[in-house]
Amino acid sequence: MNKINIGKEMYRWAEDLFPITRSITGAGFRESLGYIKKLIPGLEIHSVPSGTKAFDWTVPDEWNIREAYIADESGRKLVDFKNHNLHVVGYSVPVDCWLDRDELDKHLNSKPEQPDAIPYVTSYYKKRWGFCLSHNQRKSLGPGKYRVVIDSDLKPGVLNYGELILPGQSDEEVLLSTYVCHPSMANNELSGPVVTTALVQWLQGLKERRYTYRVVFVPETIGSIVYLSKHAEWMKKKVKAGFVVTCTGDDRAYSFVPSRCGGTLADRIAGHVLSHEVDEYIKYSFLERGSDERQYCSPLIDLPVVSIMRSKYNVYPEYHTSLDDLSLISPTGLAGSFNVLSACLSALEMNYSYRVTIPCEPQLGKRGLYPSTRTEERGHEEQVMMNFLTYADGTRDLLGIADEIGVSIKECAAIASLMEAHNLVERLENEDRKGL
Amino acid sequence: MNKINIGKEMYRWAEDLFPITRSITGAGFRESLGYIKKLIPGLEIHSVPSGTKAFDWTVPDEWNIREAYIADESGRKLVDFKNHNLHVVGYSVPVDCWLDRDELDKHLNSKPEQPDAIPYVTSYYKKRWGFCLSHNQRKSLGPGKYRVVIDSDLKPGVLNYGELILPGQSDEEVLLSTYVCHPSMANNELSGPVVTTALVQWLQGLKERRYTYRVVFVPETIGSIVYLSKHAEWMKKKVKAGFVVTCTGDDRAYSFVPSRCGGTLADRIAGHVLSHEVDEYIKYSFLERGSDERQYCSPLIDLPVVSIMRSKYNVYPEYHTSLDDLSLISPTGLAGSFNVLSACLSALEMNYSYRVTIPCEPQLGKRGLYPSTRTEERGHEEQVMMNFLTYADGTRDLLGIADEIGVSIKECAAIASLMEAHNLVERLENEDRKGL
Amino acid sequence: MNKINIGKEMYRWAEDLFPITRSITGAGFRESLGYIKKLIPGLEIHSVPSGTKAFDWTVPDEWNIREAYIADESGRKLVDFKNHNLHVVGYSVPVDCWLDRDELDKHLNSKPEQPDAIPYVTSYYKKRWGFCLSHNQRKSLGPGKYRVVIDSDLKPGVLNYGELILPGQSDEEVLLSTYVCHPSMANNELSGPVVTTALVQWLQGLKERRYTYRVVFVPETIGSIVYLSKHAEWMKKKVKAGFVVTCTGDDRAYSFVPSRCGGTLADRIAGHVLSHEVDEYIKYSFLERGSDERQYCSPLIDLPVVSIMRSKYNVYPEYHTSLDDLSLISPTGLAGSFNVLSACLSALEMNYSYRVTIPCEPQLGKRGLYPSTRTEERGHEEQVMMNFLTYADGTRDLLGIADEIGVSIKECAAIASLMEAHNLVERLENEDRKGL
Repeated sequence: MNKINIGKEMYRWAEDLFPITRSITGAGFRESLGYIKKLIPGLEIHSVPSGTKAFDWTVPDEWNIREAYIADESGRKLVDFKNHNLHVVGYSVPVDCWLDRDELDKHLNSKPEQPDAIPYVTSYYKKRWGFCLSHNQRKSLGPGKYRVVIDSDLKPGVLNYGELILPGQSDEEVLLSTYVCHPSMANNELSGPVVTTALVQWLQGLKERRYTYRVVFVPETIGSIVYLSKHAEWMKKKVKAGFVVTCTGDDRAYSFVPSRCGGTLADRIAGHVLSHEVDEYIKYSFLERGSDERQYCSPLIDLPVVSIMRSKYNVYPEYHTSLDDLSLISPTGLAGSFNVLSACLSALEMNYSYRVTIPCEPQLGKRGLYPSTRTEERGHEEQVMMNFLTYADGTRDLLGIADEIGVSIKECAAIASLMEAHNLVERLENEDRKGL
Repeated sequence: MNKINIGKEMYRWAEDLFPITRSITGAGFRESLGYIKKLIPGLEIHSVPSGTKAFDWTVPDEWNIREAYIADESGRKLVDFKNHNLHVVGYSVPVDCWLDRDELDKHLNSKPEQPDAIPYVTSYYKKRWGFCLSHNQRKSLGPGKYRVVIDSDLKPGVLNYGELILPGQSDEEVLLSTYVCHPSMANNELSGPVVTTALVQWLQGLKERRYTYRVVFVPETIGSIVYLSKHAEWMKKKVKAGFVVTCTGDDRAYSFVPSRCGGTLADRIAGHVLSHEVDEYIKYSFLERGSDERQYCSPLIDLPVVSIMRSKYNVYPEYHTSLDDLSLISPTGLAGSFNVLSACLSALEMNYSYRVTIPCEPQLGKRGLYPSTRTEERGHEEQVMMNFLTYADGTRDLLGIADEIGVSIKECAAIASLMEAHNLVERLENEDRKGL
Repeated sequence: MNKINIGKEMYRWAEDLFPITRSITGAGFRESLGYIKKLIPGLEIHSVPSGTKAFDWTVPDEWNIREAYIADESGRKLVDFKNHNLHVVGYSVPVDCWLDRDELDKHLNSKPEQPDAIPYVTSYYKKRWGFCLSHNQRKSLGPGKYRVVIDSDLKPGVLNYGELILPGQSDEEVLLSTYVCHPSMANNELSGPVVTTALVQWLQGLKERRYTYRVVFVPETIGSIVYLSKHAEWMKKKVKAGFVVTCTGDDRAYSFVPSRCGGTLADRIAGHVLSHEVDEYIKYSFLERGSDERQYCSPLIDLPVVSIMRSKYNVYPEYHTSLDDLSLISPTGLAGSFNVLSACLSALEMNYSYRVTIPCEPQLGKRGLYPSTRTEERGHEEQVMMNFLTYADGTRDLLGIADEIGVSIKECAAIASLMEAHNLVERLENEDRKGL
C-alpha cells in the first residue's frame, strides 16, 4: 500500500473510532480494542479486575455510562451527552436531582479563554460528578431550577488492554505503546492507535524481523502502570528501544520528547531519523513529558523510551477540548508520523556494527566498485563507500558511522550490504563489538 | 538576627578591627585574633615558633613596631605611622638616621596613577625598610635632610593562627579559611574575618550539623602553608568542600574563583548558589587566583576549595591602598556575602542523594499531594514534585537533581523532605549511591 | 642555516626535481630518490618486485616511457610528451596508430573550466592509454587523421621507496611520510619531499633526539600500503605521532587534516603549534582527507597521523594540473611549512609530564626567582612560572599544561627546565604518570 493510501486508511479508522465513548475502563474501551483487533487479529485483549494492586496504584472500578443531561424546568435538555461525549466529566458518579443555577455551577467546567470549546475533564480517583460545556453555553444558562441526570455506574469490573508480541530473530525487543482511553478527540487520542495499528500491519508484512516487537494499547497512566507491574522485570532486560505513540495526526509540527536521561539507542535513532526525514522538528526536554513515558522512563523502570509526535500534547491550542476533532488530523498528517516511525523501526533493524576485513583501503577498482581513472569526479556513492569503510572499525554501530560521515542510516545500510557482499566488511554480533 | 542586623554587626566588628596594626606575625595579629575569640569563644589560638619549617618555607621572625616617621630638619614629622599604619613597609627593619632627599627616595613607595593613595607594601623575606605615602605627598618633599625613624623589632617569636573545629554528625569536613594579616584595609582584609565570624556564629546556632566545620584565621600564604604542613594529610581525606573567605565587603560585583581543576563539590555548589541567589556574578579562571586557594589547591594538596567574593583582589582600583577603607565596605555588602556563603553551607548540608521507593509514578492524589481533577492547572509545586521524583534515581545528589529540573537546591530540598515524609523517596548514604 | 636560506635551498631542490618524469614506479621515481639520497645519505632505497601482494593490493608492473606524441597528417607533433610530461596519461600502454578525430577524442583529457591547464590523469590498474592537453588545444584539433605514438613499456620490475630511520633515545617513533610519484607538479608533489628532506637534515643536526624518526618517501597509496604491509605491526606499537607531508609549498593558507578519530598526540601537537605559530589556519574534517593518511589511519592500522599543509589538495584551483608549477610555490611558502612542522617535532621532543616536588607554592624569592617585594608588578615570566607549577601535577603533559595556562609549549618548556634545574619539579617517565 503506498503512503497516501496508508494515510487515508488510518484516517478512516479514526473516523470509525471517533464517536465511541471511551474511558480508562468500560464498554467503550473494549469496543475500540475490538475494532483494532479486526485490523490486527493477533491482538490479545487482557482483563485486570478492579481492585488489583499495581505498584502504588489500584485498578479502579469500571465505569459505564448510558445517559447524561442538564434539562431546564420545561424538561428541555440543554446539555446532552448524546450530542458530545465530552459533556460529562469522565468517571462521574450517577446523579438525578434538581439544582438551582448557583448549585449547578459548581459542577460545570468550561474554558473562558476558548469560549466555543467543550473541555475534557475526568475525575478517576475522587468520586464526583460534573458537566463540561462551552463557556458561551455556560453563560447562556439563566437563573432557575435545572435537572441534572447522569445515568452511569461505577462498580467492580475490569481494566482492559491490548497486547501483541511480534516475534523476531532475537528476543531483544522494541516497544510500541499507545493509549485508547480518551473519548471523542482526534490528535490526542485516535492518531496514536491508528498509526500504531498501521505500523503493526507493516511490521507483519516484513520478510524478516530482527527484533521482537511488543505493542500495547492501554489506558494512559493506570494502564501502563498495570502493564509494567506485570512485565517490567522482563522488559528491563529486553527492551532496547521504545516509542510512545501519541499526537501523531496533525500537519503542523514534528515534535520529539527524549528519554529521561537521553542518549539511549531510542534517542539516537529518533534524532537521526528526524534530522534526515523531516524538514524541522521541535526537540523538547523530558521535563515537558506528559504521556506514558512518565512510567516507562521512571527511575526504577528506566526503559529507553522516547516519543515522536506531530503537535505535542499541552502545546497545541485544541488539546483536551472538543476542538481536537477529526478536522484537526489528516491522512497526510498521519502518514507523516507513520513514515518517521517506520523509518525509526527500519533503522533499528539495520543498525548492526561493522568492521573492515582488510587493513588499508581495499582496491575497489578490481571489484568494479570504483572508477579506475583517478581524475574522474568521485561520485557521491564512492565517497560514501570510502567513508563507510573508513569508520567501519568495529567500535561504531551503523548509526554512529552514518552520523560520523553525514549520511542517513538508510543510505549507509545500502553501502554496508554492498561492502558485505564483497567481503570487505563483516557484520558484528554485539558480543564481538564489545570484545574489541 | 535578621540579615540587615547581621550586616550592621559585621560592619561594627570591622570598625573595631580597622585601626589595629596587623602583619603576618606580631602583637596586632594577636590582638585581632583576641577580638574575634570574644565573638566565637571556641576559637583556639595557636603559636608556631619562628624558624619552624613548613614545606618549602620557614616561619619568619616576629615583627613588632612601635613608631615610624620621616621628619624634616626642623623635627616636624611629615610622614607618621601614627597617622596611618600603611605608611611603613611591612616587616621593615629598624632604622634611625639622617638622609638627603635622593637617598630617602630609594625607600619611598607611592602610586603615580593614584596620587592620593598610600600603597600597601611588605617585604617579609628580604630585610629592608621603607615608607609608603601618597604620590602627592612624595612630590611635596623638597630637597634637604630628613630623619627617618623606624622603631621596630624583628626577632624570634611566634606565628599565630586561630582554629575552630565545629563537629558535625560526620567527620567529613567543610573548610572556611580567612586571613587576618593586613593592616588598616577593609575589603581586602577585614571583610573576610568578619563574614567568617558571622558564619561561625550562624553554624553554632544550627540545630544539627551534618559536616564538621574547620575554620581557620591565618596570616595569608605563610599561615596556610604552616597550617597545611600540620593538617594536609587529614584534610586531603576529609575536606569535601572549602571556601577562602576574602574581599566580601563591598556592594559592587559578586566574583567566583573556581578550584584548580574545577568540577568539585565546592565548585558545583558555588555555581548553583550564585546562579540562584544573586543577579549576576563574574566567573574568573583559576589563573586569576590570588589568595590561599593557591596553597589549598596546589598539586600535592589539591583540596576542593573555591572563593566567592564581592569585588575581587587585584581587580578593584582601591585594592592594596589606603583607599580600601571602611567607606568601601558596607553592612549590605557584607550581608550579601554572608547570605551567599551561608546558602552554600546550607546547600552542602542538604545535599544528599535520593532514590524513589516505588516503580512508576506514585499516586499523589490519594496522599493529598495532587489535584484529583486532571484539567486543573498543575501548579509549580506539583511540577517540581513530579520532576524531583523523576530524577531521584539514586545516581544524582540533590544538587544534580535541582540542576536537572531547573530549580534551586533549597526549593528541591523542601520537596525532598515532603516526599521522604510520605516514604516516596529514601535518602541514601553515600555508600548506597556508589553501590548502585 | 637560517630560515630564509632553508626556504631558498628547498626551492632549489624542487627546481632540480621538477622536470623528472615520475610515476608510482620506474626510472623517474628512482632518479628522484637518488637526488634526495645525495641530500640525506642515510636514505635506504628499497625495491619490491611487481606482483608482490600487499593487503588487498598487488604491486603493479613497472612503467617506463621514452616518447609520446600526437602528430597530424603532415607529421607535425601537436602534443608532445617532451614538452610537458603531463601530456600522457600515467601508465599508458604503448600505442602507435592512426586515428580519425572522433576516435582520438576518446583518448583525450582536458578541463573545459580551466581551458589553459593540462590536467593530470593516471590509470594505474586499468590498461588504457591517453593524452592530456589544454582544452584550448583540444578544440584546435580539427578533423582529419592523427598519428598517436606512446613508446612506453609496462612489464615486471620493481616498486621503489626510500626509508630512513633516525634512532633516538627511545624506540618510540615519530613518522614522516611523503610521496614522490607525481610528474612535473610543485605544490602537490615536490613541496612534500623537499620539506621532508629539510626536516631530516634538521633532525640529524639535533644534539639529541628523544624519539626515533621513521621517514619514508613512497609512491602515494600503493607505496604506503606496501610499506604498511611490511611494518604495520611494529608501527602500531611504536608510532606515537605521524605527519603526512604534502602540499607544503605555497604562500596561501595553512591547512590541517586531523587523524581519523582525532584527539591523538599528533592532533594535539598540531593544533597547539598551529594556534601559536601561524596567524590562521583551516581545520578540515578527516572526511576531506586525500593522501596517505587514508592508509595510516585506516581502521585496522589506526596510527595517530595528521597532515599539516599550506593550500590543501583538491581545494586550490591549480591542483592536479600543469598550473601547479614552480611559480605556485616559493621559498617563504616552503619555509613556513618547515617552521611549523619542525615546531611540531620540537614540541614532541619536549613533551614530558612534570610533577612538583613540594606541597604548596615554593618560596621562589629565596632562589632569586621572584621579586621579594610584593607590590612590584609580577612580570609575565613569573606568572608563567607560578601557573606552570600550579598545573605540573603529574597528570598533564607539557602540552596539556601549556594549553591550560595559555602559553606556547616552547615557552612552557623553558620554564620547565628552569624549575627542574631548581628541583622544584621532576620530569616523569610515562610509567610514573600512569601510576599516579
